[in-house]
Amino acid sequence: MWDKQQTARTDRIRAGGVHARGKHVALENVRALLGSVLRPGDRVCLEGDNQKQADVLAAALADLDPANIHDLHMVQSGVVLPEHLDIFESGIARRLDYSYSGPQSARIARMLFDGQIELGSVHTYLELFARYFIDLTPNVALIAAVSADADGNLYTGPNTEDTPTIVEATAFKGGLVIAQVKETVDKVPRVDIPGDQVHFVVEAGKPFYVEPLFTRDPAAITETQILTAMLAIKGLYAPYGVRRLNHGIGFNTAAIELLLPTFGEKLGLKGKVCTHWALNPHPTLIPAIEAGWVEQVHCFGSEVGMEDYIAARSDIFFTGADGSLRSNRAFCQTAGLYACDMFIGSTLQIDLEGHSSTVTASRIAGFGGAPNMGSDPRGRRHPSEPWLKAGAEADPDTSAHLRRGRKLVVQIGETFGEKNAPLFVERLEALTLAEKLDLDLAPVMVYGDDVTHIVTEEGIANLLLCRNRDEREQAIRGVAGYTDVGRGRDRKMGERLRERGIIRRPEDLGIDPLDADRRMLAAHSIKDLMLASGGLYRPPSRFRNW
Amino acid sequence: MWDKQQTARTDRIRAGGVHARGKHVALENVRALLGSVLRPGDRVCLEGDNQKQADVLAAALADLDPANIHDLHMVQSGVVLPEHLDIFESGIARRLDYSYSGPQSARIARMLFDGQIELGSVHTYLELFARYFIDLTPNVALIAAVSADADGNLYTGPNTEDTPTIVEATAFKGGLVIAQVKETVDKVPRVDIPGDQVHFVVEAGKPFYVEPLFTRDPAAITETQILTAMLAIKGLYAPYGVRRLNHGIGFNTAAIELLLPTFGEKLGLKGKVCTHWALNPHPTLIPAIEAGWVEQVHCFGSEVGMEDYIAARSDIFFTGADGSLRSNRAFCQTAGLYACDMFIGSTLQIDLEGHSSTVTASRIAGFGGAPNMGSDPRGRRHPSEPWLKAGAEADPDTSAHLRRGRKLVVQIGETFGEKNAPLFVERLEALTLAEKLDLDLAPVMVYGDDVTHIVTEEGIANLLLCRNRDEREQAIRGVAGYTDVGRGRDRKMGERLRERGIIRRPEDLGIDPLDADRRMLAAHSIKDLMLASGGLYRPPSRFRNW
Repeated sequence: MWDKQQTARTDRIRAGGVHARGKHVALENVRALLGSVLRPGDRVCLEGDNQKQADVLAAALADLDPANIHDLHMVQSGVVLPEHLDIFESGIARRLDYSYSGPQSARIARMLFDGQIELGSVHTYLELFARYFIDLTPNVALIAAVSADADGNLYTGPNTEDTPTIVEATAFKGGLVIAQVKETVDKVPRVDIPGDQVHFVVEAGKPFYVEPLFTRDPAAITETQILTAMLAIKGLYAPYGVRRLNHGIGFNTAAIELLLPTFGEKLGLKGKVCTHWALNPHPTLIPAIEAGWVEQVHCFGSEVGMEDYIAARSDIFFTGADGSLRSNRAFCQTAGLYACDMFIGSTLQIDLEGHSSTVTASRIAGFGGAPNMGSDPRGRRHPSEPWLKAGAEADPDTSAHLRRGRKLVVQIGETFGEKNAPLFVERLEALTLAEKLDLDLAPVMVYGDDVTHIVTEEGIANLLLCRNRDEREQAIRGVAGYTDVGRGRDRKMGERLRERGIIRRPEDLGIDPLDADRRMLAAHSIKDLMLASGGLYRPPSRFRNW
Repeated sequence: MWDKQQTARTDRIRAGGVHARGKHVALENVRALLGSVLRPGDRVCLEGDNQKQADVLAAALADLDPANIHDLHMVQSGVVLPEHLDIFESGIARRLDYSYSGPQSARIARMLFDGQIELGSVHTYLELFARYFIDLTPNVALIAAVSADADGNLYTGPNTEDTPTIVEATAFKGGLVIAQVKETVDKVPRVDIPGDQVHFVVEAGKPFYVEPLFTRDPAAITETQILTAMLAIKGLYAPYGVRRLNHGIGFNTAAIELLLPTFGEKLGLKGKVCTHWALNPHPTLIPAIEAGWVEQVHCFGSEVGMEDYIAARSDIFFTGADGSLRSNRAFCQTAGLYACDMFIGSTLQIDLEGHSSTVTASRIAGFGGAPNMGSDPRGRRHPSEPWLKAGAEADPDTSAHLRRGRKLVVQIGETFGEKNAPLFVERLEALTLAEKLDLDLAPVMVYGDDVTHIVTEEGIANLLLCRNRDEREQAIRGVAGYTDVGRGRDRKMGERLRERGIIRRPEDLGIDPLDADRRMLAAHSIKDLMLASGGLYRPPSRFRNW
């Protein structure tokens, strides 16, 4: 017997078929469908992306009788909806392997402490996708699309995200694929998932839930954040000549995006930095795109309100024959890993070795993509100027031909973050969490030995140039401001590090902190972004304050 | 103007349409088609995989008039066919970014020396794919499939390989996709590429060329290779408990595959090692599969002759609704990077620091996937037993919660390889090549700091346990046999390293080299493999010697 999986799938299709017409299942039958095709202990991917959610399927799953369907092993990148955790409370699910749990980070922590979830691992997206093909292949995938035709061909619209990856791993390994769609149409605008990989289509009658995660209101950007952005542009982007990069989702990097056409333009950097991106369609990138800074952007997912703008800028974005964005998280994470020279993002805590984490004692947000993009890809073999320069700084002694380059991995933030919490700490709360939960590893976002620079309002610490642990610690303390870590600095050593360019203050870069003015931003509000787009960007109502 | 690319594509489609009926182009019109849609300086991906080749399109491209079509920038993973280089001689192409050039390695070296090719970079597969989405996006993709329907939906058969990745990058960024197929059919057996991503289909009337790259005849395995395989199984697979792994394509790893059901069985390792693979369908894995060792295999590409066996073993392999293998190089490389705990493979040269290379002064074979899989993925966040154990050996001092694991990266080979060339050298020929070609980096396959173990017939060197450069060098010399490098060893230090388990001789592992007997192999010939498969494996005629 070497086709047990295919036989099992045939049985599932037969059982589910009772509730379907062809592949199509009416909304009122979705619970019955899931009840008939799932088996206790199944490995299930309930999509669960960073943005879009198979919300109707999630609700139906949570509504099943745990006496019949129980002990599921959930393998999904996003734990976002309440139902994603409800199923663990009811016993429908038991084990969890995931990547990101932003909105559920407090509840997932409580449930882990209470032993209500058996934790597999917290992964990066790409790492979880990798395991879909090796040892976490789903038996059943519950996915989300915009529309389907009679054959089950699916159109995902701009939020393609994880769907092709989930479906490939499931459908080609004897697994069952069930899609929720808003509607059935005669012909889908484009085929994102071929129908022969889809077994059932549930007509939800409404669009899937999608979260605008990447919209940062320029009005909320502080002058301290503007200062960190100026330091990054003049102290890192310019000297390294960073053309290919990824930005995190915080306000510091939004400030960088909005300073390119103003501060960056004055520095003569147009065409020399920030031309090629692995990035979601950030609204704050609109002014730079309109000013001709950007050649190309490949996206992990999409962003609510950016649809028409993207469609009208097909030279910049990847779009389909239908005009709308084609995103793909697996490829964009791969691009962020291997084809970008810089990752720059924010974090909640940085320790004396440069390890950083977004975990606190009561919140486990998961990793998302940061550890993947915020790590040095040692399998990279193509050189680029920024990569070679960073490598030479880190390792001046090895001969050039045998010296590898280094990816620029930059942490940017204010020394005191939200609620005045210090960014720099002696000990990460992630360690406390690891002890409490008896984890093999503390959930470290970016490890210190991968971090090349830390930018705060106090300056830039270049960790590539540090030659030992002490120098590294003092470089970090040297930009940690008035936090306890910052006040614990050795002033003399700090001065020596500054002489060697390891610590650079704003004045060392010819930047006057008083120049960090909100007027420098290329847009001051969401409305400005909309205007900059020629009215093409249509922000969601919650961001409309005019 | 923000849709120049789409406008250009519309122009290309119109120009090509003259030679087509709908999307379909007769073989006699293929040259005219290419001549009308290509533009000088285009970035072109001529597929060009590790195994399958768009050979008909390659011939047509080489047949164009360089007065009209010239200075193309070729971005393709495989440089395999003579036409792939002919186009550089004629001036049709000028610049090259690639990954692998096995059969053309000597000619590509000559042409690089002569300045006939402007070299971009030599990449790993995944790295080149990553750049398709960032800064090496093709304007035109010339791809290969088995069949197409009237709408251009493509069936690739088991050799899906790079095709979905190439097409995604090209079709969604305003590029043109042209496929060669053997034939047009009413309905394709499965949809590997949706028709709305395909602009022209050339009916070649014959299958695309495909190379059986992964077939190793058990009859050619030497007893020395069997000894290295025994050492690897007992000295590495068993103590680390390696369940998820990738094997290289050499005879040493073929020997491991063939020893699992015999030597491995005696050691009681069934179910404890080698259960989940990122691997092409190696015929030498058949006995282990039949003996129940293998749970799952995800494949980069396929292997000629394995079609029926794979179709009959769908619980093991990823297969489509049509029954045939679904391979996918991008996902399998990702799986090899992030979801495998071991990469083990052979090389041509290893230096005193453990750097290895397959480049010689006159041959540039390219990297393929080895540097990707043979590197420590620092973005990995999920623990596993082998990974944690290797990490603890490398770094006993860091607290467990902040210590990363390590991927096992093993080089295996005989101290003297083909034509009695020493495996161990003082200086890699790759360095000479880098100097001659004025490259930024020497083409190093696996860097020494990523290698964890070296296995030869003399024993196993565990580089994880080495605490400094000297120990590392002596550990390498200690398994380098009678090569000059081996004879340069410091005997006393070697003894100390052996006491610490850094060098382990066969006798330290309870292995008598005299037991390394060909009778231990689970199959002794290609015919045995065919018999083990129940006649399902149908080796290509060149491997049939009975």
